[in-house]
Amino acid sequence: MSNIEQQAGPVAPEINTASDEEEAASWYTDIVLRAELADYSPVRGCMVVRPYGYAIWENIQGRLDRALKATGHENAYFPIFIPYSFLQREKEHVEGFSPELAITTHGGGEKLAEELVVRPTSETMIWAMYAKWIQSYRDLPLLLNQWCNVVRWEKRTRPFLRTMEFLWQEGHTAHIDEADAEREARLILDLYADFVRDALAIPVVVGRKTDLEKFAGANVTYALEGLMRDGKALQLGTSHYLGDSFAKAFDVTFLDRDGQRKHPHSTSWGVSWRLIGGVILAHGEKKGLVLPPAVAPHQVVIVPIARNDSQRELVSRAVEGILAKLSDVGVRAKADWRDQLTPGYKFNDWEMRGVPLRLEVGPRDLAKDQVVAARRDTGAKETLAQADLTITVPALLASIQQSIYDKALAYREANTFEAESLASMAAIIDQSGGFVRANWCGGAKCEEEITRHRASIRCIPLDEEDARPTGPCAVCGEKGVHRVYVAKAY
Amino acid sequence: MSNIEQQAGPVAPEINTASDEEEAASWYTDIVLRAELADYSPVRGCMVVRPYGYAIWENIQGRLDRALKATGHENAYFPIFIPYSFLQREKEHVEGFSPELAITTHGGGEKLAEELVVRPTSETMIWAMYAKWIQSYRDLPLLLNQWCNVVRWEKRTRPFLRTMEFLWQEGHTAHIDEADAEREARLILDLYADFVRDALAIPVVVGRKTDLEKFAGANVTYALEGLMRDGKALQLGTSHYLGDSFAKAFDVTFLDRDGQRKHPHSTSWGVSWRLIGGVILAHGEKKGLVLPPAVAPHQVVIVPIARNDSQRELVSRAVEGILAKLSDVGVRAKADWRDQLTPGYKFNDWEMRGVPLRLEVGPRDLAKDQVVAARRDTGAKETLAQADLTITVPALLASIQQSIYDKALAYREANTFEAESLASMAAIIDQSGGFVRANWCGGAKCEEEITRHRASIRCIPLDEEDARPTGPCAVCGEKGVHRVYVAKAY
Repeated sequence: MSNIEQQAGPVAPEINTASDEEEAASWYTDIVLRAELADYSPVRGCMVVRPYGYAIWENIQGRLDRALKATGHENAYFPIFIPYSFLQREKEHVEGFSPELAITTHGGGEKLAEELVVRPTSETMIWAMYAKWIQSYRDLPLLLNQWCNVVRWEKRTRPFLRTMEFLWQEGHTAHIDEADAEREARLILDLYADFVRDALAIPVVVGRKTDLEKFAGANVTYALEGLMRDGKALQLGTSHYLGDSFAKAFDVTFLDRDGQRKHPHSTSWGVSWRLIGGVILAHGEKKGLVLPPAVAPHQVVIVPIARNDSQRELVSRAVEGILAKLSDVGVRAKADWRDQLTPGYKFNDWEMRGVPLRLEVGPRDLAKDQVVAARRDTGAKETLAQADLTITVPALLASIQQSIYDKALAYREANTFEAESLASMAAIIDQSGGFVRANWCGGAKCEEEITRHRASIRCIPLDEEDARPTGPCAVCGEKGVHRVYVAKAY
Repeated sequence: MSNIEQQAGPVAPEINTASDEEEAASWYTDIVLRAELADYSPVRGCMVVRPYGYAIWENIQGRLDRALKATGHENAYFPIFIPYSFLQREKEHVEGFSPELAITTHGGGEKLAEELVVRPTSETMIWAMYAKWIQSYRDLPLLLNQWCNVVRWEKRTRPFLRTMEFLWQEGHTAHIDEADAEREARLILDLYADFVRDALAIPVVVGRKTDLEKFAGANVTYALEGLMRDGKALQLGTSHYLGDSFAKAFDVTFLDRDGQRKHPHSTSWGVSWRLIGGVILAHGEKKGLVLPPAVAPHQVVIVPIARNDSQRELVSRAVEGILAKLSDVGVRAKADWRDQLTPGYKFNDWEMRGVPLRLEVGPRDLAKDQVVAARRDTGAKETLAQADLTITVPALLASIQQSIYDKALAYREANTFEAESLASMAAIIDQSGGFVRANWCGGAKCEEEITRHRASIRCIPLDEEDARPTGPCAVCGEKGVHRVYVAKAY
């Protein structure tokens, strides 16, 4: 870990101004396409996820799935089609989702007796099944999750962030009482926040949604909000306490220890491939993606450098050896053997694609039993002894993961502002973007005022200290009840 | 590995007679529900896969996915909706799938300009994208796979075997020429066959489908066929060489080394959760499931035996120790702590659910530093020293995996018959079921004759020796061209 030519560490955060909004949007679309994360499909609003993007999703899925299983959740699979009448059983739920539904009317050449909705979320189907499976308190808690596709007919779509069809996981749990369901909703919120911080290197604010912003059918919606490099907030996951409304809608009861039949309480929660959008937006910069090692498809790319056949043989033997060694210690490394491209082209290509660490392997360094390592996050280069790569490469990857997080945190801190009036809130949102901390009376009218300024209350933070009002409501001047996070959102 | 009370080894195969057909069907449905593998959903033909069934699917997926990646395939994700006009571009393809389509006509409250098909398979969508991605011979081969749900509007459905919606993987590859595509189709066929033999413990015949049985749009369909315990054949996977028809239909060309623009050749291939149906039907018996350790959700179930609190404390400490030790060596073990049930009930329950190995942990055995092990496949019991469990349990699991395969192979051998005439073929199919080896002239008329007897040509085996005719066509008496496998099929 010696020979560091340039010291690693958080780079001064750039603050994107709101006038950059169009530029930021085109940067995003451009990098999604150029890095071959995804492509537009012939069906409006539906995206194709290409191997490089899908590999990020697989890494997210693998790690999150292990965390969910470690906390007692099991996976299952429920049908993609839901009878329309099921959605109607929960009034708020159907009102929330009706405008976004895709409807299947024909099957096997015949008109269907009842129209089928392509699932936008599966509460109704799953609670119809829970009615069969839940009989006794012994059947609780029931902690199921499913990884699947869902469809919501969105008008304006953007790859990963908002697509008509998307991949996600949706958890649906049933509990003996409100306290147990509340505990579950919070446990998942923490699990998500840990995952987003540790794997995606994105610092988050965890909080409660206002009534205006909560899920259709929820008593409480908890959410995690990250601040993106363009000054907008991105909701990265939600966890809902649903009360007993779905249990009642689907007539689910259990016989409790005390001999009484009761309705179980429920939660639902999900994260989607939007997390990939979060990774792009939270860490990307002009040259392209910056992927956290924990979810990067290739943590290391090896670029062989050789001018003639004898060099090529020497170098390729060394590269094969390094690949094998790194694979042994669980590092995902890839060698770029494309013979029609120059090393310089490859350097730029993999930088654009955000590979955390590049190893350059050429005859001059090999003669000294070393290789050159270049970090994507800082651009720092150093030489590494070949013999130590199984130690130094994992250490460098850990350092990169941390530094990407530190940089995102520094950016968020530099872009979190205070506003004591609606005018100052609006000015910040317009001029620099970022999170605006403001006191709020809790009233729906004041919240609506805020939304007129292209911003919204992202959440009431769960941290009590953080949520404590410091003065009167920034909008109406009445008594402040909460101190909230306001931002322009995706 | 001493103290074996009853020697392991293949049990004499039971031959199910065709009069058992209804009984076999109800045994199947019953065990799927009782073992909580799956449940019926409120949508006709759509199944809910419960955690115990889904865990088998995850084990299948994990292992197969690793094998596909090891052979250079990458995962991607394509939209669930396909414009109807895309299907029409390949004539045979649309003819084959039209009767089975689910059609979405409305989205977001409006009638769609073009009706969308819920994908029954993704050749057309994927080749529409390949038109953008394939330009040069350097882009080939393109080896993509996707794990997803598909919908086929089936009239008669059975859990796992034939459902309206099912989960599968579909591979779609593009190649420089016919030879390379053919090689791919065969490579995947071999990969599937190895997987089914090694992981699912089902012996398979690999062969080519006749024109009548091949995939809509394929030049050649390869398949693997297993013989189930009720005497019927089950197609467990298919791999198609598709020629250049999809490349032509979607106008995909590449610039070859010789400066010529050419159409790539393609393959597609898939296996689905039908494999779970295969595991149930190939190994199950009266008492319930018999799961191969390689894919069993729990390879070992531990039943604690204690009569009072002090015993319970001793036993539970021992069980926790065993769970930790087994987990360290990669064994999936579960302890059954349900306190309202007797050990005897638990024994039966886990036998019904097919757990390969049961460990009984009680104070009497613990005093001798040992536990009792009971094999699901043979019923054999033995005592194992507690200190050696990390050695003896994996060894027992390997032995169980092998013995389940051996038994299935012995069953298939005992139920593979020869027929020299249509009458004798029909008699075998009617009376005992099983595979019937018969000479065939290759004519469509003779094949149709066979289908009138509720049987079909399952495949022309790839093994040349096996496929060589030994006499005249069993149907028409003309020159035999192939020796084929005939059976009643699922």
